[in-house]
Amino acid sequence: MKIYLDYAAATPVAPEVKQAMAKYLDEDFYNPSATYLAAQEVKKDFADARKIVAHWLGAKPAEIVFTAGATESDNLAIQGVMDKFPNANVVISAVEHEAVIEASAKYASKLAPVDAQGRLIMSKLSEIIDDKTALVSVIYANNEIGTIQPLAKVAKLITEVRSDRSRRNVLQPIYLHTDAVQATNYLDLHVSKLGVDLLTLSAAKIYGPKQVGCLYIKSGTEIEPLIYGGGQERSLRGGTENVAGVIGFAKALDLVQNKRREEARRVNELRNRLKDYLTGNVSDAQVVGTMKKRLPNNLSIHFPGIDGERLVMELDERGVMTATGAACDASSDEPSHVLKALEFSDVAANSSIRISLGQATTKKDIDSAAKTIVDVVNRLRQN
Amino acid sequence: MKIYLDYAAATPVAPEVKQAMAKYLDEDFYNPSATYLAAQEVKKDFADARKIVAHWLGAKPAEIVFTAGATESDNLAIQGVMDKFPNANVVISAVEHEAVIEASAKYASKLAPVDAQGRLIMSKLSEIIDDKTALVSVIYANNEIGTIQPLAKVAKLITEVRSDRSRRNVLQPIYLHTDAVQATNYLDLHVSKLGVDLLTLSAAKIYGPKQVGCLYIKSGTEIEPLIYGGGQERSLRGGTENVAGVIGFAKALDLVQNKRREEARRVNELRNRLKDYLTGNVSDAQVVGTMKKRLPNNLSIHFPGIDGERLVMELDERGVMTATGAACDASSDEPSHVLKALEFSDVAANSSIRISLGQATTKKDIDSAAKTIVDVVNRLRQN
Repeated sequence: MKIYLDYAAATPVAPEVKQAMAKYLDEDFYNPSATYLAAQEVKKDFADARKIVAHWLGAKPAEIVFTAGATESDNLAIQGVMDKFPNANVVISAVEHEAVIEASAKYASKLAPVDAQGRLIMSKLSEIIDDKTALVSVIYANNEIGTIQPLAKVAKLITEVRSDRSRRNVLQPIYLHTDAVQATNYLDLHVSKLGVDLLTLSAAKIYGPKQVGCLYIKSGTEIEPLIYGGGQERSLRGGTENVAGVIGFAKALDLVQNKRREEARRVNELRNRLKDYLTGNVSDAQVVGTMKKRLPNNLSIHFPGIDGERLVMELDERGVMTATGAACDASSDEPSHVLKALEFSDVAANSSIRISLGQATTKKDIDSAAKTIVDVVNRLRQN
Repeated sequence: MKIYLDYAAATPVAPEVKQAMAKYLDEDFYNPSATYLAAQEVKKDFADARKIVAHWLGAKPAEIVFTAGATESDNLAIQGVMDKFPNANVVISAVEHEAVIEASAKYASKLAPVDAQGRLIMSKLSEIIDDKTALVSVIYANNEIGTIQPLAKVAKLITEVRSDRSRRNVLQPIYLHTDAVQATNYLDLHVSKLGVDLLTLSAAKIYGPKQVGCLYIKSGTEIEPLIYGGGQERSLRGGTENVAGVIGFAKALDLVQNKRREEARRVNELRNRLKDYLTGNVSDAQVVGTMKKRLPNNLSIHFPGIDGERLVMELDERGVMTATGAACDASSDEPSHVLKALEFSDVAANSSIRISLGQATTKKDIDSAAKTIVDVVNRLRQN
């Protein structure tokens, strides 16, 4: 029996989501920009999906721009703001998703360091922001080690920066973006509580379809489009609307946010059980990052001296699917930038694996996977 | 009974396509970048889809970059090349899709005019291209009036420009892009025959899913990414691969290209039957564009003095779904830029409708729609 423990990389589409999408593929396939009634009805269903997404963010529907997934949303946030201010810089945390890192690399960008637990060092962030900083991007919860960042504190800092700039007549606006992709299954997404101006969501990690997502853009935010076209999404994102995909996304978001508290409790218990077994049975195993502010489904664990890639392969042969790090980086041979930001050496970074739980994970799965992991680690050490 | 005659705006997903996609939503949902066997199998299926798409273009699989649809592909072609050459200009035909027009507007751009039939005026194009032209974009077949452009002639001209530049040591490269979205159902897509360096395809207009497409990029073409991320698509387009969507796209392309000749003959006959009835029964009705080089499923027709929008609405009430122009422009009140390029006045441009046939269109549909259109036109004229 296969045990899937890589929910941070991909989730299956939920049956209710698949069902919600189905009729928009063939029966109600119309282009929502067409004027006949059948198309206008599709347009209305699409607008309803937008309302559902806006609801969970505490946002206005007009503040939601649908995109082809989180990578595009991150790019729209970064490139969209930075293209507006050619002389500005962008500050990102050292543990951002590849999409944020690579998009920022086009511009003057600065890295805000994290501590050994993976948490942003607020004093450093404060020092790094200067009068030319137009954008700060801090991931809500990290995709490799699950660390939840102190977004509210970052938002407070940004507010202070704004007041200070205003006093000194510095006209450069400053915005706060967060990639909330991994947080969506378990955490509150209300943008006013988080204090963000831009927020990235993905359907692909919340039991919705791949390459569907959105960017929340607070009213008044100065931003350029990334993809130009026929005026869709208030001219911020061209292209015929992905009706089935967006309706599936809204359904998926609704499902996970409705049960996020109980599901967080459930996976947290299972994850802790796994952690206790692994640290109890492999004497030098170490949890990477903090257990205090961490996604409940994430366990990144360091087995000194073990080749993480080898471990993941051997586990796969025994039916347990895990990851060495972010799937997006899997094609690269470089050690994880997240673990390096935590001051892991290259060798140590390559001795860690990421285990991520999800809706179908059971206690039986966890107990079976736990034993298998300990077995394989012990066997690899005997060789 | 409803008669859908707006296939240029949207097509239903074919049953075979829906079927091909289904298992990648839930059963085989894995992230193709993950290392376990189940994910590697998905990666292989994804690679097979790429081979199918490459096959129909006569391209190498590595020359195909999957995107979230034609609008993104057009943007990647234009922005990707133009960002590489900051001092260059782009030349586009006057009858391009909105995505090409809007993306080009970011750069120094020039418009190549068309004649009264909507065909590119080759001599003018030749004059407009200068030593700083990095990109020429000419739509394969227009989305409003179905005019097929003389791409091979354009390619020949580009080859001459290259030779001439080479002789004079002008280092600026020049590329040819075509948006082949509306052509895909009926025309040959082999890039070597067309002579293009970049070619845009969409799944959404060929009975595949919405927001899936690709850009063919000839090996050696200098181009920047538009969406940065985890290194997918040879670092030219970040984001977890849309596995189900791309597999559906490949299936759809395979289906339409396999039967394109017979389907072209079939709809051509039906379209001509409709045209003959309309021009035979409304004395001043005029076909917009040429009947010689035209997509077999397209009929754009001008009824002098009739309000096109009103006509489309009245037809909808009688169960016939048509369009005033491109669906992408439907939200705008401006007269069609395509009809204006054909030197239609604003009033005349607003007196035309676009009828586009597709796989489910029958002779019975056409005869019924033809009568309805004539009835409604006559009634509107009596008011």
